[in-house]
Amino acid sequence: PGPTLERFKTERFLFLSFPPCLFFCSCFDISFVIPVLILFCSCHKLQESLLSSASGYSNYRGILNWCVVMLILSNARLFLENLIKYGILVDPIQVISLFLKDPYSWPALCLIICKCLALLFYLWLQGTFGERLGTFLHLINLSTILCLPVATVLFVSSMTPVGAVFALAVYTILFLKLYSYKDVNRWCRDIRQARARTLARSLSFQRFNGSAVQTQVSYPGNLTHRDMYYFIFAPTLCYELNFPRSPRIRKRFLLRRLFEMVFLMQLLVGLIQQWMVPTIQNSMKPFQDMDFSRMIERLLKLAVPNHLIWLIFFYWFFHSSMNFVAELMQFGDREFYRDWWNSETVTYFWANWNIPVHKWCLRHFYKPMLKRGVSKRVAQAAVFLVSAFFHEYLVSVPLKMFRLWAFMGMMVQVPLAWFVGQFLRGNYGNAAVWISLIIGQPIAVLMYVHDYYVLHVQGPSAG
Amino acid sequence: PGPTLERFKTERFLFLSFPPCLFFCSCFDISFVIPVLILFCSCHKLQESLLSSASGYSNYRGILNWCVVMLILSNARLFLENLIKYGILVDPIQVISLFLKDPYSWPALCLIICKCLALLFYLWLQGTFGERLGTFLHLINLSTILCLPVATVLFVSSMTPVGAVFALAVYTILFLKLYSYKDVNRWCRDIRQARARTLARSLSFQRFNGSAVQTQVSYPGNLTHRDMYYFIFAPTLCYELNFPRSPRIRKRFLLRRLFEMVFLMQLLVGLIQQWMVPTIQNSMKPFQDMDFSRMIERLLKLAVPNHLIWLIFFYWFFHSSMNFVAELMQFGDREFYRDWWNSETVTYFWANWNIPVHKWCLRHFYKPMLKRGVSKRVAQAAVFLVSAFFHEYLVSVPLKMFRLWAFMGMMVQVPLAWFVGQFLRGNYGNAAVWISLIIGQPIAVLMYVHDYYVLHVQGPSAG
Repeated sequence: PGPTLERFKTERFLFLSFPPCLFFCSCFDISFVIPVLILFCSCHKLQESLLSSASGYSNYRGILNWCVVMLILSNARLFLENLIKYGILVDPIQVISLFLKDPYSWPALCLIICKCLALLFYLWLQGTFGERLGTFLHLINLSTILCLPVATVLFVSSMTPVGAVFALAVYTILFLKLYSYKDVNRWCRDIRQARARTLARSLSFQRFNGSAVQTQVSYPGNLTHRDMYYFIFAPTLCYELNFPRSPRIRKRFLLRRLFEMVFLMQLLVGLIQQWMVPTIQNSMKPFQDMDFSRMIERLLKLAVPNHLIWLIFFYWFFHSSMNFVAELMQFGDREFYRDWWNSETVTYFWANWNIPVHKWCLRHFYKPMLKRGVSKRVAQAAVFLVSAFFHEYLVSVPLKMFRLWAFMGMMVQVPLAWFVGQFLRGNYGNAAVWISLIIGQPIAVLMYVHDYYVLHVQGPSAG
Repeated sequence: PGPTLERFKTERFLFLSFPPCLFFCSCFDISFVIPVLILFCSCHKLQESLLSSASGYSNYRGILNWCVVMLILSNARLFLENLIKYGILVDPIQVISLFLKDPYSWPALCLIICKCLALLFYLWLQGTFGERLGTFLHLINLSTILCLPVATVLFVSSMTPVGAVFALAVYTILFLKLYSYKDVNRWCRDIRQARARTLARSLSFQRFNGSAVQTQVSYPGNLTHRDMYYFIFAPTLCYELNFPRSPRIRKRFLLRRLFEMVFLMQLLVGLIQQWMVPTIQNSMKPFQDMDFSRMIERLLKLAVPNHLIWLIFFYWFFHSSMNFVAELMQFGDREFYRDWWNSETVTYFWANWNIPVHKWCLRHFYKPMLKRGVSKRVAQAAVFLVSAFFHEYLVSVPLKMFRLWAFMGMMVQVPLAWFVGQFLRGNYGNAAVWISLIIGQPIAVLMYVHDYYVLHVQGPSAG
């Protein structure tokens, strides 16, 4: 009876706060208060449903969780279905065979080692000759860097496609780095000449320069092997005389990145073997029969693993690996990507997902073009053109097929960027960027695999 | 040259804003400003990657769009795969056969019509007899409402399961409504008696009551056929003498809800025929072989269409249909659901997804129990028990099998609610609620279908 009395008191208090009840309360016994309370504190009131637009309600926070749960569950099912259908396909030994056809010939590795010789030659170029001759030799060197691996890949039969992609990627990075190195050193020479000319006019300049020298390297003090190799291994494509340096190597950070690198590498290989390869193999028949509804079904089926692998690759390369290298070299600038996942235009995506390349394009290609009076729109298209060339270069040469699918894929970005920028805003623009990523890549992948399959698997067996 | 000069000026301005540049600028010709600018506005600075915890970055707005795009694309693929595999299975004629076995016997419809007679009888009960006899007759009437359809379903062979579910649902709603009707009228009689007793004490009471009468109905003025039938058809289970009324019927709102009702009804039937039925049929074999990994795969495969159908059903019933009826009857209280999608505990979900039933339970079951001194925890469990009984009643009787899966499903909510409330907070709690919804329902569905299949399809063929 104790707590019941307590409850009565509380309910009477609530009841009393409702004005007409005050009157009632004075008339009735306490035993009638409760039913009256229930009657008068009416259980219906005039209001709209939450989902009606008139209600003004907009808190759908839970929907995000719903999306995440649905995605995890449906992908868990796909994974289980895959396991039941194919068993375990992951095979670490097979990975090695992708790099090596003949265990006694290591063409990709040889290529990478021989680039070091090119570098020694390159440093010798800087400042030894006059500007004209130097530029000429520089161009010869750069074109060698681009052409040598192509020749090797095309004529050495023991080169596997995966090994070739790896070697070509390293050579492309080297090309971009040396281009930047040469440009910056030329700017330094320009400044030195200008300084020599104006030295007579102001002697105070020397003092300013002298104070800066204490901590900062200046031209030609930067032309050392140490400085050059630091730049070659640093996770950036733009040369600077004085890179920002982080104060110390954080060991826990380094170990975490190393763990991520190793783990995600395994995950990537596993996902490709278990999920991508069977899906692609099953896609060959519909593509040859030109059965459109099945082609679209296969395309969408491939889109999910392809996109997940791309996302994991992004994190593995741009976050884990680059941060690992940067931490090891005490390289200070860790901005390897910006928030491309929020991008509302295609241009924003391309300008923010790969910052090293974007910075290089801006500094050594886009801005010099603008300076020569080229319009912004043309310069932008030219950047996409060069990017398309390198994409094609990295895919066509290792596969030994020239189909221009990757080139087209990059060039389609220009009208797509215009369309999205013109017609879609906010979340719709963001969704359009995501769709172009999720759908665009597997189209290109399927095109190349189909052509490769026709040439290398079906061609010989038919012939 | 015009815009180029403009650009030079802008760049010089930027350059001048960098203090040491001021000095340089006085020394050099304008033609050297640009390379110097590029050199000094250094392209690297000390900073962390966005995904490092040290960066403090947390804007992942784009991820929501990613989730939505991925969900739409992967379900589009599932739908396409389904179409390729099974062709078009949607068949509107088949729907009619679910309600009718024998076109000359309409048992479900007859049941629903005969309830009107019970209602006429019911109104006559109110106030005609003394409180004791009235309550006794009331109980007989209510138990008839619950038992009559059960007897009909079990003994009339031409009753289909779908027709039976429909009839039972109508009878259950009627039961809950009449229970509420009787309770409220009894409270009114209690007040009238109390008033009669206190009338001598205060004559001013009559005046207060008189002014209220002008717009509001009071007992026994509410005991009319018109008032009762309004309540029977109104989208609520709790009787009140004076419902809040909306000022007018908004025709556009009404038409939009009607369109939604018709369209979503078609969509529901289509999805069930095209997606649910083949998936369930394919699940029978793994369930009989007790092949666990395939059972889980089937369960997850069923979870997606089942959940989507449940969501569409929710919108169709609680938003479109109820708002349509309410608009037509100018019923003011449109709160048929609250924001259950944000619920972080199981209790919050059950208290907010079905407001008419929740209100009824609170007003006519939970609060009266509390008043009699039952503890909150026990009262809550009792509410779940009654709810479990009605769930089982609506499923077992039409299928003519008593397996208690639905009962168990509801009763499991009690420990689940305790677990989630105790250990999970915020988004984790919300995700747990979603998972229990997405996974829990298809388990129960598969259990019933499996048992029904064993009894009705396999049993006769084996015998």
